[in-house]
Amino acid sequence: MKQLRVPGPTPCPEGVLKAVAQQMINHRGPHFQAIMERVTGRLKEFFNTKNDLFILTASGTGGMETAVVNHLSPGDKALAITNGYFGERFADIARAFGADVTRLEFPWGEGAQPAALKAALEKDKDIKAVIMVHNETSTGLTNPVRELAQVVRAAERLMIVDAISSMGAVELPMDAWGVDVLVTASQKGWMVPPGLAMIAVSPRAWLYSGQAKMPRYYWDLSKARRFLEKGQTPWTPAISMIYGLDSALEMMAREGQANIIARHRRVADAVRGRVKALGLKLFPDEKFASNTVTCIRAPQGVDVKPMLKYLREEEGIVLAGGQGALDGKAFRIGHLGWVNDKDVDEIMKGVEKGLARAGYVKA
Amino acid sequence: MKQLRVPGPTPCPEGVLKAVAQQMINHRGPHFQAIMERVTGRLKEFFNTKNDLFILTASGTGGMETAVVNHLSPGDKALAITNGYFGERFADIARAFGADVTRLEFPWGEGAQPAALKAALEKDKDIKAVIMVHNETSTGLTNPVRELAQVVRAAERLMIVDAISSMGAVELPMDAWGVDVLVTASQKGWMVPPGLAMIAVSPRAWLYSGQAKMPRYYWDLSKARRFLEKGQTPWTPAISMIYGLDSALEMMAREGQANIIARHRRVADAVRGRVKALGLKLFPDEKFASNTVTCIRAPQGVDVKPMLKYLREEEGIVLAGGQGALDGKAFRIGHLGWVNDKDVDEIMKGVEKGLARAGYVKA
Repeated sequence: MKQLRVPGPTPCPEGVLKAVAQQMINHRGPHFQAIMERVTGRLKEFFNTKNDLFILTASGTGGMETAVVNHLSPGDKALAITNGYFGERFADIARAFGADVTRLEFPWGEGAQPAALKAALEKDKDIKAVIMVHNETSTGLTNPVRELAQVVRAAERLMIVDAISSMGAVELPMDAWGVDVLVTASQKGWMVPPGLAMIAVSPRAWLYSGQAKMPRYYWDLSKARRFLEKGQTPWTPAISMIYGLDSALEMMAREGQANIIARHRRVADAVRGRVKALGLKLFPDEKFASNTVTCIRAPQGVDVKPMLKYLREEEGIVLAGGQGALDGKAFRIGHLGWVNDKDVDEIMKGVEKGLARAGYVKA
Repeated sequence: MKQLRVPGPTPCPEGVLKAVAQQMINHRGPHFQAIMERVTGRLKEFFNTKNDLFILTASGTGGMETAVVNHLSPGDKALAITNGYFGERFADIARAFGADVTRLEFPWGEGAQPAALKAALEKDKDIKAVIMVHNETSTGLTNPVRELAQVVRAAERLMIVDAISSMGAVELPMDAWGVDVLVTASQKGWMVPPGLAMIAVSPRAWLYSGQAKMPRYYWDLSKARRFLEKGQTPWTPAISMIYGLDSALEMMAREGQANIIARHRRVADAVRGRVKALGLKLFPDEKFASNTVTCIRAPQGVDVKPMLKYLREEEGIVLAGGQGALDGKAFRIGHLGWVNDKDVDEIMKGVEKGLARAGYVKA
């Protein structure tokens, strides 16, 4: 395989894989404590936050569940902004644990509108929390968290954001924008294999969690806080992934956050430019197009699945199909984490060949 | 470090670490599907089961939570057998999710008694499930699951067993003994870094889960079952750990289950022999002494913590202290997974030196 370009897992740099392969150590000993403290500190820098931050042994969805069950009680009203597959998932999680969830729906591919959020929060003063996805991997769209958070702050509710496929790669300064609960996962912008979710929580979120009655044990952040005081986790952590994260954060610190964000913007611009030059259409409204994943409408007459199979088997390029309602109607290119300009050329040359082979002719 | 001998994480063979370091692949693609199917099949062989078996991205405690929330409803009566720290944890998890938990307590270090279990189940016909720990890492004790399961079968309740620190290393044929829900984790007998929990569930357990109303999303086994039909997991799995597990299971299949169990028995016997030759006392009743972890009473006048620090810093031997109520009163040697007779000699020579340095003289 030349290019793994699904929207996660992303390919891992060699140094990260080497770090991942290190021998086990005692997770209750001083060596591990030093690593945990370094990794947690660096993550906080990339989150641009002074909030508490925890590393969980889980997929990103476990981090989403953690964000819900620590801050709400059954029956609590939550407003779920949805405009894609993962926004739906977040709403489903809250409902599974008994929240009274209202959906503020926008069409897939359109950005969530701050004015509509404002109206929804004014209409129902009992809504305690807004839950939403920053970067919708399913549609290749980045929601305007900055403006949405301003609305939530003004209305004095809790702002819970899944930034699983954007954090580390796209601008989202947690404290400056006023996000209360922020979730991400290792296999996206962080260039680390899957297995870790990371969650940061504001002092306001701690006030909520003191009242929150949803049942929790494995995800209990008050336990995580107690153990982190000793540089530990309550449960045996995925040590190898934390080794990998330590190495990746070292690499990221060398590149610098501003440069990383600029690289993702540049790469995404290049992908979008090539997509449009081919006469293809982006799925989302381009104003909200994501810098970590590009979702492309399947052109008329092109069958996506055999094209992706051809790319995978003959060109060594692994892309993703459409998700949920977009199955068969779109395909997606992940360009986050360990990605650079030269990758774009290789990926897009493959896509051109795949499309031509599928009989596509630019209109 | 020469010897990492806490009761998990255990040291990993070089081949496992090499496997763990492999590059990422698409977890929704055919290559990953082949690995998942091979690993799941092999795990079932080691569980000696035809039941469904799932791999979760989580610490062992996440597997325990999964075992509870898929099979019980809030208010359901559960009997928790407790004779150590992890038995207490299992009871706490069930209670956190609203089960009506009765504890069947035995003193730490004494094996759970089938007759007492029988009486407890006869006394309260409303008890739906028995939850218990096979191998109590905290006290170095293995509970008699075979006999206890017979009682549970006869009384027609659900038998949920945490075998996190025994599966793969100690005999526990799931189907023959009639266990309904069985949980383990990668960093114990499986010689893989932490980050995976494995859970197998019987057809009887599926009947329970159809009725169970405890809230669940990340841990929902019905979702896991649907995805496993395609060789997938519902959420992005810890791919690296599954690579490692694949390699470890290959190694274990070559050695053979009977040989692995015999090796653990032999190593444990050797450790216990050396411990007794030093004039030290095992913490648990020797009839129930575990073949994966030995818990030793701190001899009078010996301060455990500085002794463990000396072993760690000067001898490169990492052992564990006492857990929970045994903090400062015992120390523990893990001997599970990647361990052999020659390790015992190195470990025990270190312990002898550490004890001598702490002023211990055999009585």
